[in-house]
Amino acid sequence: MANQSDELDGMFQALGDPTRRAVLERLGSGPTPVRELAEPFKMALPSFLQHLRVLEDRGLVHSQKVGRVRTYRLAPQPLKAAEHWIVTRRAHWERRLDQLDSYLQELKKQQS
Amino acid sequence: MANQSDELDGMFQALGDPTRRAVLERLGSGPTPVRELAEPFKMALPSFLQHLRVLEDRGLVHSQKVGRVRTYRLAPQPLKAAEHWIVTRRAHWERRLDQLDSYLQELKKQQS
Repeated sequence: MANQSDELDGMFQALGDPTRRAVLERLGSGPTPVRELAEPFKMALPSFLQHLRVLEDRGLVHSQKVGRVRTYRLAPQPLKAAEHWIVTRRAHWERRLDQLDSYLQELKKQQS
Repeated sequence: MANQSDELDGMFQALGDPTRRAVLERLGSGPTPVRELAEPFKMALPSFLQHLRVLEDRGLVHSQKVGRVRTYRLAPQPLKAAEHWIVTRRAHWERRLDQLDSYLQELKKQQS
């Protein structure tokens, strides 16, 4: 239980940054060498590598070094836990609020 | 575009904490006075209130003070943006990876 919660913490924290989300979007088009991946970001390379490290620690990307080139690729499977958390709760909560709303409307009608 | 990205940052950062997720879950059962909401958490009240402030800043909860009692209620609608981001991308990325996998399997077959 604690582990699953830690996993969700890490996943949501990884997604809560525009650079990291943009990297995931870029890798959605295919594996990319780190230099090419860093290019669109106006950021010092060490800061950019720090973002990649966060994504790799969460299992959202994998990297492989061939010769002098490290290439990153996407691993979208761990996103499922975060997706599941949001999807199940939001739908349920909105349904509850709708029910409460209908109930209040009904009460009002009965009183008027 | 920048605004939408900021909104996603805030939303994912708000969800990346176990106390804040637990508060949302608790509020899923109905509006709750702040003291009652704080009770299960072994945490100083000011720290707990800070978590509530983060959730309220993101629009995920609303509060109302009646007399001396502040009551919080859930506002799940803003979660939609975060849900949409994850759901659209993950499904698309997994499909792409599956296609790539089938293609590689096909190549292997042809070569053997």
